[in-house]
Amino acid sequence: MIKVAIVGGTGYTGLELLRLLAVHPQAEVTAITSRSRKDIRVAELFPNLRRHCELAFCEPHIDRLADCDVVFFATPHGAAQAQVPPLLERGIRVIDLSADFRLRDIPTWERWYGQVHGAPALAQEAVYGLPEVNRAEIAGAQLIACPGCYPTAIQLGWIPLLEADMVESEGLVASAASGASGAGRQGKTGLILAENSDNFRAYSASGHRHLPEIEQGLSRVQPPGATPAQVTFVPHLLPMVRGIHATLLAKARGHLSAAELQALYENRYRDEPFVDVLPPGSHPETRSVRGTNLCRLSVMQPQGRGTLLVMSVIDNLAKGASAQAVQNMNIMFGLSETLGLESPAVLP
Amino acid sequence: MIKVAIVGGTGYTGLELLRLLAVHPQAEVTAITSRSRKDIRVAELFPNLRRHCELAFCEPHIDRLADCDVVFFATPHGAAQAQVPPLLERGIRVIDLSADFRLRDIPTWERWYGQVHGAPALAQEAVYGLPEVNRAEIAGAQLIACPGCYPTAIQLGWIPLLEADMVESEGLVASAASGASGAGRQGKTGLILAENSDNFRAYSASGHRHLPEIEQGLSRVQPPGATPAQVTFVPHLLPMVRGIHATLLAKARGHLSAAELQALYENRYRDEPFVDVLPPGSHPETRSVRGTNLCRLSVMQPQGRGTLLVMSVIDNLAKGASAQAVQNMNIMFGLSETLGLESPAVLP
Amino acid sequence: MIKVAIVGGTGYTGLELLRLLAVHPQAEVTAITSRSRKDIRVAELFPNLRRHCELAFCEPHIDRLADCDVVFFATPHGAAQAQVPPLLERGIRVIDLSADFRLRDIPTWERWYGQVHGAPALAQEAVYGLPEVNRAEIAGAQLIACPGCYPTAIQLGWIPLLEADMVESEGLVASAASGASGAGRQGKTGLILAENSDNFRAYSASGHRHLPEIEQGLSRVQPPGATPAQVTFVPHLLPMVRGIHATLLAKARGHLSAAELQALYENRYRDEPFVDVLPPGSHPETRSVRGTNLCRLSVMQPQGRGTLLVMSVIDNLAKGASAQAVQNMNIMFGLSETLGLESPAVLP
Amino acid sequence: MIKVAIVGGTGYTGLELLRLLAVHPQAEVTAITSRSRKDIRVAELFPNLRRHCELAFCEPHIDRLADCDVVFFATPHGAAQAQVPPLLERGIRVIDLSADFRLRDIPTWERWYGQVHGAPALAQEAVYGLPEVNRAEIAGAQLIACPGCYPTAIQLGWIPLLEADMVESEGLVASAASGASGAGRQGKTGLILAENSDNFRAYSASGHRHLPEIEQGLSRVQPPGATPAQVTFVPHLLPMVRGIHATLLAKARGHLSAAELQALYENRYRDEPFVDVLPPGSHPETRSVRGTNLCRLSVMQPQGRGTLLVMSVIDNLAKGASAQAVQNMNIMFGLSETLGLESPAVLP
Repeated sequence: MIKVAIVGGTGYTGLELLRLLAVHPQAEVTAITSRSRKDIRVAELFPNLRRHCELAFCEPHIDRLADCDVVFFATPHGAAQAQVPPLLERGIRVIDLSADFRLRDIPTWERWYGQVHGAPALAQEAVYGLPEVNRAEIAGAQLIACPGCYPTAIQLGWIPLLEADMVESEGLVASAASGASGAGRQGKTGLILAENSDNFRAYSASGHRHLPEIEQGLSRVQPPGATPAQVTFVPHLLPMVRGIHATLLAKARGHLSAAELQALYENRYRDEPFVDVLPPGSHPETRSVRGTNLCRLSVMQPQGRGTLLVMSVIDNLAKGASAQAVQNMNIMFGLSETLGLESPAVLP
Repeated sequence: MIKVAIVGGTGYTGLELLRLLAVHPQAEVTAITSRSRKDIRVAELFPNLRRHCELAFCEPHIDRLADCDVVFFATPHGAAQAQVPPLLERGIRVIDLSADFRLRDIPTWERWYGQVHGAPALAQEAVYGLPEVNRAEIAGAQLIACPGCYPTAIQLGWIPLLEADMVESEGLVASAASGASGAGRQGKTGLILAENSDNFRAYSASGHRHLPEIEQGLSRVQPPGATPAQVTFVPHLLPMVRGIHATLLAKARGHLSAAELQALYENRYRDEPFVDVLPPGSHPETRSVRGTNLCRLSVMQPQGRGTLLVMSVIDNLAKGASAQAVQNMNIMFGLSETLGLESPAVLP
Repeated sequence: MIKVAIVGGTGYTGLELLRLLAVHPQAEVTAITSRSRKDIRVAELFPNLRRHCELAFCEPHIDRLADCDVVFFATPHGAAQAQVPPLLERGIRVIDLSADFRLRDIPTWERWYGQVHGAPALAQEAVYGLPEVNRAEIAGAQLIACPGCYPTAIQLGWIPLLEADMVESEGLVASAASGASGAGRQGKTGLILAENSDNFRAYSASGHRHLPEIEQGLSRVQPPGATPAQVTFVPHLLPMVRGIHATLLAKARGHLSAAELQALYENRYRDEPFVDVLPPGSHPETRSVRGTNLCRLSVMQPQGRGTLLVMSVIDNLAKGASAQAVQNMNIMFGLSETLGLESPAVLP
Repeated sequence: MIKVAIVGGTGYTGLELLRLLAVHPQAEVTAITSRSRKDIRVAELFPNLRRHCELAFCEPHIDRLADCDVVFFATPHGAAQAQVPPLLERGIRVIDLSADFRLRDIPTWERWYGQVHGAPALAQEAVYGLPEVNRAEIAGAQLIACPGCYPTAIQLGWIPLLEADMVESEGLVASAASGASGAGRQGKTGLILAENSDNFRAYSASGHRHLPEIEQGLSRVQPPGATPAQVTFVPHLLPMVRGIHATLLAKARGHLSAAELQALYENRYRDEPFVDVLPPGSHPETRSVRGTNLCRLSVMQPQGRGTLLVMSVIDNLAKGASAQAVQNMNIMFGLSETLGLESPAVLP
């Protein structure tokens, strides 16, 4: 059994880790930290975990984490930078779900997150935990930077086209929408049900923190010499709990038949356990991946006009955060990659 | 492996059976029927089952069901009565999720369901599949009548008080509310989102078909000589997908302290794997049992005034239908009762 | 034109007052206060009021309110007690939407609200603003205590039966449910969409602050000598924005035919512009009164068993707060009672 | 008083017309037709209209419509083509909310709607009822073709840029989302709450019937010689009742400062009573226009990269259908354009 600790356990990504690890056959959560909820039983805060989790929250002292095999950070950005180095020194592997180690370019990180980066050298060593791109590096990594939710949905959606250099990479458009759980478990007026139910709006359209991560990730998969991907990214807030839908538009370079387009995607993801390319003409639904580690995709060329449309759905808390973190753990520890991640979505 | 067939697979209880059995380690679905969807792949209709179910719907011929160990009926009421007898004759066990065999009193059934009962003798033999009451009979049964959703939530809520004869059994009040999936997967104007979102209303308040089942079930657990339970049952439709919440009110007979009340419930359900009595003062949430076989309960006596309040939540499609059916299957086949039913609710 | 000021304008009842008064032909809002939002334009906080309200929030100084004809308090409980007396001294009428002056019995108020009452004498003078009971007193009042949302729905539901002394007044059951806007516009984790969408639960079932108001109001309408109404009140939180549904159960005293029951309600409310008794067998919907000052009701006796069921719906922010406050203003100023309150609900 | 008849009164656009006209000071509905609901009272089907509408549905005979001043068609596409000519012959004006007369190019209409057009000559005479473009023609029109919901939101969003020829008109992207009421009041499985709540998906992405209307409308406002607008239009279904949000992306031709961009929009719509350009940096919300005839807009250039983003919201049943139809009526009959359309949105 892999001994797991979770730092920052009172938010939604922490809760989702607990839910997934509660039924994982090869992992056991031995500590979960929260300063504000110290000594309170986890199942008191999250009643769905009654009979599944007997732990109480503890303080994030190094000695509470030191006998673990792996520590997940489910903390706000900025928190992991200070706490990760002593863990790595003791040989404990770290999977960070926050944004702390996602960007290689430190000035970019500091500009978007508005603070000085506390561990710039580590940011160069961290492996970006998108298995569909980085599986081999993940297997040998000490520190994983788990991708953000929007970046996961958007990268998986465009990777086949960008790897094949088949679209104009400068004028990419990503119109994406997320369920409200993406904003976290914080008590803000802007997040209450009465403000968001029966409503839809964009937010941060002039610039969202996931933009540099998306462009960094897309650029990495482009062939040498290609113009680096430049994306107009418009996030929206959905009146629902879980799910991200990315509507991706790109101008085709050269002609591609519908069959070739479909084949490009099917071939790219044929061996991926968690990317499911839907039949031609399909529209993926967010609910079909709720609670799962799946990304469902479809691709088409509306009216045959040269604009390629990809639609990509994930669960923002699952493939967009905690389930992808568990997938990374499975890879790092040599387990079957799908272990503990096989349940289909609860539908309806 | 237990070979399972499902008759009537295009509704929500059929879908929920498929979801649960897809990850059940000792059961395998070998046939699923639908006349209207014959030859269509199940995963085409229900995309959450892609990669989990390779079957196509078939016609409900006896020869497609004959080599199974157990057949689940997820059909509209009236359908199972004709199809069950030949299966039983071949020694195939049947778990019926419809209302066909729930009521012992045939004239009552015929009055509430508006048709002649097609197999009245079988209705006497069928075992009512509420394991918390009937576990032993279920283990030896050939035909299970799975309880309805409201009756499950309401019976589990009141059983401790009625068994102990501690409330006035004539003036019981059950104000209950269900998610919209309880009305099935039918295309009716009254069920569309635009008619039900941001709305709440009662329905069938003058008389709902689950009323005789509720009263039959409660009366069975009352001690000899007690006045048979009589319930005013008011169902409501919630603007959400899954979940039943039963708000149960009864007048106490004699005095009971809060601690005694709590102990009565905790003792009654101490060994039940799927009934969870919450700590004093709790309010159970429907989402905490979504997708699970759990019933969560709390009991209190508001203002100490002699009216006892029980709040009981289940998932109408899970403990209220398909997961309870799987629990029955586990008991019938001598498996661990919780097999395949252990995952915690996806929350939030 | 009646000059109106609103104290405490950043919550939902303040917003609803602004919406209603924006189209009221005989009233004009001349000041709206908020300490925290001082000098910010109202339409900046509430974009639906762009082109309808040019005001900015101001501090609640007496000199900003002194030239008004009437001041509405849309403040948290406790705030009006200090600010109302100087206004009354200047002859300004006050309509208080908070709980400050609803209860006559000061010790009861202090016990439920956990603070010392700041103006106990005024609480005796205040007129309870339920026009269907108190119309004449309202017309001559200087200070109105607007009823709470649940108390409005529940009193209107039971008044005909209690006035006629036709039910056992000791064992009343009110199972009621409210949209999330009833909890206000506060940033609390427990109110965010991700915690409440697709979920249903009771709250404060052991004792809710509206209970003494409900019982006080019901007792007032009972005939002399009747046992004072005693209610078990169970509030629930609905996954939607607006609306209250009260499911009211009472044991009949003596026999009443369905036609007599219906006639009792129709006669009681025949001349009421804002109480609509539905035809026999109806189930009122919350959406049918959304945004309006209406209460829609139906009454029945399920299965003819002696338990009388009333279902009553209002909009918690409208008839349950701000629209009823405007109705009170219309009465106080001798206007047509329905002025500015005639628009039908937006449906769907 | 203008005498109004409504043909096809049982759908949502018919219901919305009734709601708006119930409080319109200069119009009176004298007939409303429905074959299937003949003789049933309107308020029985739509309880929000109790006390507002005493009519019963009647058959759509010409003699029931002949004494009206104007007839609104709220029928499925194809129905108005046959019924409109005899009305026009009698001098009755017609406002058609269906798609029958929106497209000038008959072969295009026939291809997208899959039927032969029944009145191709009339389609040339009909005036497209978008007042922000066609106000003068509307004033003199006998037959108005009311714009579709998506086309309204999208045209109003792009008109300033296309009139000024400031974007590349060939690569336009419109990612738009609609509440479920846009699909009508039909009982289809795909529309029920249990299938759509807590879910988000695109639909008809390969080609939606509103596409040719959008392109026809945009092309009309372009300067002579400009490349006709070509749009990739991706509609999505939101888990809510009312509202359309259009996220519009276009590549700028030449440089435009943020201030110039804002001024372009403010100047274009300065005198429009129903188009509200939000301050720079705003994100319009669908709820802020719910039930109103308003379009709220914002425009920005994310990251200054040359892609112009416009966000445009309307209520699909109001400005997207029935309220815009009333606006057209007001113009046709020389009334104040905002008459009966002034109420702010009910928020929250």
